[in-house]
Amino acid sequence: MGGSRAESLSHGECLRLLGRAGVGRVVYTKHAMPAIDLVAYTMREGAVIIRSPGDSELPAAVRNAVVAFQADRLSADLADGWTVSVVGHATEISDRTEVTELAALPELSAPPPWATSGADRFLKITVKLASGTRMGDGR
Amino acid sequence: MGGSRAESLSHGECLRLLGRAGVGRVVYTKHAMPAIDLVAYTMREGAVIIRSPGDSELPAAVRNAVVAFQADRLSADLADGWTVSVVGHATEISDRTEVTELAALPELSAPPPWATSGADRFLKITVKLASGTRMGDGR
Repeated sequence: MGGSRAESLSHGECLRLLGRAGVGRVVYTKHAMPAIDLVAYTMREGAVIIRSPGDSELPAAVRNAVVAFQADRLSADLADGWTVSVVGHATEISDRTEVTELAALPELSAPPPWATSGADRFLKITVKLASGTRMGDGR
Repeated sequence: MGGSRAESLSHGECLRLLGRAGVGRVVYTKHAMPAIDLVAYTMREGAVIIRSPGDSELPAAVRNAVVAFQADRLSADLADGWTVSVVGHATEISDRTEVTELAALPELSAPPPWATSGADRFLKITVKLASGTRMGDGR
């Protein structure tokens, strides 16, 4: 299906599609070099909420920085699916009530298996720019 | 399978696993902001070779820069699979003979559907650092 059909997505469509995936990649700078981490995430009021394992360097590296975030859902031949990237400001969620609430969310309650120890932390990316492409029927 | 089993991978194992995937993500800086692009790639002599659509801004943005590159193969529940990230110097392959040869490689011969026009270009990332994690049986 789809073949070479590909279309750019609007800001709103990008955010809507991000609501469908549960794993994404956050792009930031670590030790002055580009870095990329696989993370569990959810969308809340148009912002990307990331669950970060307690022993991860991610919160310290991205706090108050501009980061990129990407998620996609693609067929193996890339003929069907979508990919969305956003850029925004990252902050750590420190409100205890909100942290407790986020920790209980089903979509964030199963941290990736490589999450090892320590209390998980939550990061919020306020979306400034969003871009994306849909291929074929867009799954 | 696997449950919470997760292990860090050696440099050699990271490069070997990268040889299994055909789509990855290159992480770079565009207009002074972090950016991430989905790309078709292959491995050659330990380097990551990326096919970039002719009308992409990627070659200009990453030429002679340090970039990150990531690929993964994961089950939907993240319990099985692997993810590998590398950091290295990106250069454009300008040798016409090599470009012709790369353009004919089966794994790079089907550009993503969002590749639109212009002669494709090829980028090489010389791997300096590689890190990765395998979950479960590693697929």
